Amino acid sequence: MSNERKETVILGTLVHAPVRGELEVIHDALVSVSANGEIVKIDKSGSTTYEQSLVAARKDPQLTTLKDGQYLLPGLVDLHIHAPQWPQLGKALDLPLYDWLQQCTFPLEAKYADLEFARPNYSSLVDNLIANGTTTATYFGTVHLEATKLLADICLAKGQRAVIGRVAMDNADECPDFYRDPTSTVALDETRAFIDYVRGLSGNSANRVMPAVTPRFIPSCTDTLLKGLGKIAHEYDCHIQTHCSESDWEHNYVLDRHGVNDTQSLDQFGLLTDKTILAHANLISDGDMSTIKQADCGIAHCPLSNIYFSNAVFPARRALDFGLNVGLGTDISGGPKADILSNCLGAVNASRSLEEGVDPVLAGSERGTADSRVSYLDAFWMATVGGAKSLGLKVGQLSLGYSFDAIVVDTTVANSNLMVWSDLDSDADILQKIVYNGGRNNIEKVWVQGRLLKGQ
Amino acid sequence: MSNERKETVILGTLVHAPVRGELEVIHDALVSVSANGEIVKIDKSGSTTYEQSLVAARKDPQLTTLKDGQYLLPGLVDLHIHAPQWPQLGKALDLPLYDWLQQCTFPLEAKYADLEFARPNYSSLVDNLIANGTTTATYFGTVHLEATKLLADICLAKGQRAVIGRVAMDNADECPDFYRDPTSTVALDETRAFIDYVRGLSGNSANRVMPAVTPRFIPSCTDTLLKGLGKIAHEYDCHIQTHCSESDWEHNYVLDRHGVNDTQSLDQFGLLTDKTILAHANLISDGDMSTIKQADCGIAHCPLSNIYFSNAVFPARRALDFGLNVGLGTDISGGPKADILSNCLGAVNASRSLEEGVDPVLAGSERGTADSRVSYLDAFWMATVGGAKSLGLKVGQLSLGYSFDAIVVDTTVANSNLMVWSDLDSDADILQKIVYNGGRNNIEKVWVQGRLLKGQ
Repeated sequence: MSNERKETVILGTLVHAPVRGELEVIHDALVSVSANGEIVKIDKSGSTTYEQSLVAARKDPQLTTLKDGQYLLPGLVDLHIHAPQWPQLGKALDLPLYDWLQQCTFPLEAKYADLEFARPNYSSLVDNLIANGTTTATYFGTVHLEATKLLADICLAKGQRAVIGRVAMDNADECPDFYRDPTSTVALDETRAFIDYVRGLSGNSANRVMPAVTPRFIPSCTDTLLKGLGKIAHEYDCHIQTHCSESDWEHNYVLDRHGVNDTQSLDQFGLLTDKTILAHANLISDGDMSTIKQADCGIAHCPLSNIYFSNAVFPARRALDFGLNVGLGTDISGGPKADILSNCLGAVNASRSLEEGVDPVLAGSERGTADSRVSYLDAFWMATVGGAKSLGLKVGQLSLGYSFDAIVVDTTVANSNLMVWSDLDSDADILQKIVYNGGRNNIEKVWVQGRLLKGQ
Repeated sequence: MSNERKETVILGTLVHAPVRGELEVIHDALVSVSANGEIVKIDKSGSTTYEQSLVAARKDPQLTTLKDGQYLLPGLVDLHIHAPQWPQLGKALDLPLYDWLQQCTFPLEAKYADLEFARPNYSSLVDNLIANGTTTATYFGTVHLEATKLLADICLAKGQRAVIGRVAMDNADECPDFYRDPTSTVALDETRAFIDYVRGLSGNSANRVMPAVTPRFIPSCTDTLLKGLGKIAHEYDCHIQTHCSESDWEHNYVLDRHGVNDTQSLDQFGLLTDKTILAHANLISDGDMSTIKQADCGIAHCPLSNIYFSNAVFPARRALDFGLNVGLGTDISGGPKADILSNCLGAVNASRSLEEGVDPVLAGSERGTADSRVSYLDAFWMATVGGAKSLGLKVGQLSLGYSFDAIVVDTTVANSNLMVWSDLDSDADILQKIVYNGGRNNIEKVWVQGRLLKGQ
C-alpha cells in the first residue's frame, strides 16, 4: 500500500526533543516525506535553499500547511498496553494486583477465546489509540493465538505501528484453570506460530507490525516456559515484553521462587536483550539497573498504573540519569487513561511526589528523595524518543532518515482545555501546555510511516 | 430572567451520592424543576403515581428525555480558582510556591488593572468552566476592584453560580510594589465596596453570585488587615476564602510570625466561620482539624496543585472520617487542569500515594500510611456534596428542595476516551468510568438554577 503513495511535504512549526532536556522548535519547517514514509528532507527558514524549496512546495498538490496554533510533533509511543483489557479502562482500580488479576482481569481476558468478542473490542482499541496520537503501540494480547493474530491484522489494516505478543502463562499455581496455557509446549509452539504469522503478513514492511515473545510475568510461567521463550527470542531476534518488579507481592514472589530479583531471573532465562521491554520496574535495585543497562533493555514506565498496583513510585529520574532507555506506557487497564499525554503528566506528578514525599505528619526535612523530579520536557522525551529507543525503532523524532510517525496538535480547537495566549506563551510554554492539557480533541492529524491515519 | 422560565421536566437516569460512600442511581427518573430552578418533584419508576406522571410528562413540550448512555449528575463544585491565572493554566509548574508567586503569578495578576485585559480572559474562563460542568465556582479575583466586579458581572450574565472575592494583600514585606494594596484601609474599603456591589446586582437572586472576604493568605496581609477583614465578614455574614497551611514555607512563615498554625491564627482574626473555605490545608494538625470542625468551615482540597506547591499530600480520608466538610478545587493555575473531574482522579491518586508511600528504596512495610485512600465515590462526593456543604449551598445533589444545578454526561460521544460496555459495566462501573475518563466533550448539558447554560 505504501508504494502507491506519493511524496508529501508538510509546512509548519516542528516541535521535538531528540536530546533529553533539549527542546527543538523549528518554525516554518518544510518536512519532505518519501513515498515509503521516510523523512528525506527538512528545510529550515534562513537556509540558502529555503525560499526556493518553499516556492516549489507551494506548487505541490501534496503540500500540507499547518495553520497558526497547530504544531507538528513526533507520534507518541506507548510501551505497555494489555489490549484485551480495553473494556475495563477506568474501572476495577480498588483491588491489589493479585486479586485484580484473579477476580477481574483473567475472566475478562478469557473471553477473547471468542473471536466475535475480540474483533469489535480490538478494533475499537486501535481506533481509539490512533485518535489519541499513539503511533506506536506495544501490546500484550491474550493466550489465544487466533485472537492475537486478529489484533495483528487489525493493526496492519488500520496502519498503527505495533509490537504484539501472544501471552504465555502456563503456571497452574498462579493462573486459573479457565485461563492458562495447558502446557509449556503449547505456549512455545503458539509463540512460534504467532511470530511466523506476523512476519509473514502480506504488506507488513518497514517495521510496521512486529511480534514479541511475551511471558506474562514470572509468577505466571514455569521455568521450562521461561527458558523456552528465551530460546525463541534469540532464535527469531524479536522483541520481548514482560513485567518486572512491579509490586511488593510480585517482587517478593520472584525472590522467594528464584532467590533473585526479577531482572536477574529474566537475565538467566535469556530474556534481557536490546529488544526487551520491561514494564514497571518500580522496585529494581542499582544492581538491576546495571544489568538492564548492559543488556540495553527498555523500561515501560507506567506512572498512572503504578499508583494502583505498584506500591511505590518508579524512580524515573534516577533511571534516566543512569542512562537507561525509559519510555511511557498507559498499561491499559492497570492505568485508567488511554493516552500517553495523560501519562506524561502522570510521570511528572509521580516524580514530584517522590521528590517531595507525601506524609504531612513528617517534618519537611524528613520527607522525600532529593533530585527525583522529571520535567514536562523529560516526560515528552520519554513519550517519544525514550519509547523509540526502548524498542530500537527510528521513530520518536522528526529527523532525517526517521520514519514519518507524527501528529498535528491543534491548540485552537473550540471544545478543549488547551489554551494558548500568543502574547504570553513561549514555545516552551506551549509544549508544556500541550503536555499538560492536550487531549484527543487536539490531535488533528496522525501519520504512521507517512500514511495519514487521522485527519484530512 | 429566571422568572420568565417555565417549569421543566427531565426524564433519565439520575446518579448522585447524597450520603458519602453511597451511590444512588435512579433509572428513568422524572425530575421536575420549578420556574425558579428548584427541584420540586422526583418520580421514581414503580411508585404509584409514576405511570401517570410519565404520561403527563410526555405531553409536556418542556420535557427533556435523556438518551441511552446519558446520565444526569449534580453539577460540579470548584472550591478554589484564581480567576486571573487562567492564561497560566498548565505552565510555570517547576518553581516552588514563593518564587512562583513573585516571578510568574503576581506579574500576571497585576495586568488585571487593565479591564481590556481582564474582560476577554474572565469571559473565556467562565465559558470554559461551564463547558467542563463546573456549576459552582469559587473565585479569587485580584486586588483590582473594577476587574473583580467585572468577573461578578460576567458570572451573573453567563449564569454560573459563583462565590467571588476581591483579593486583599497589603503586606509590603511579602507583596511586590507593583501588586499590592497600598494600605489596609484601601483593602478594607474596597472589600466592602465589592460586597455591596455584588449584593446589589440586578437579577442576582437565589444565591447566584455571592461575595467573599478574601485575604490572599496570612503572609500577604498585615495583622491590621486580617483583623479588619474578620470584622467585615461578620458584619456582612458573607463567605470567606483564604489559603491555609499549604506548604512548608507558608506554614512555617505563619508559625514564625504568629507562633501558631494558620488555622489558629485565622481563628484569632475571626476568619473561621461556617462560610469559610480554607484552600489546601495540607499541613493541618489534629488540633487544627478540631478547630475547623467546630467552626464548620469547608476545605478546598486541590490534589493536583498540591503536587507542585504543597510538599505533602492532604490527608483527605482522615479529614472526611473526622467529619470535616471537604470539597475539591482546581486551584487554577496552581493545578494544571481546569476541570473538577480531573481533580477527582487526582484526589484518588494522591490518597493512594499517601496510603502506599512512594519511596521504592524502603521496604514495603516501611512505606505509606494505612487507611488513607479515598475511593472514586468519595471523590465524586467531594466534587458535589462536599463542595456544596463547604459553601452552605443547597446544590451538589439532585434531591427535593435543592437547586437544579446539574449536568448531563454522555458516554456515547465519538471523540472521547469514556467508553461503556453495557453488558460488562454496572452502574457503579459507569460512574467510576465517568470520574476517571469523563471530559468536557462528554458534558452534554449544564444547568444552573434550572437555566440551561450548555447544550440544547
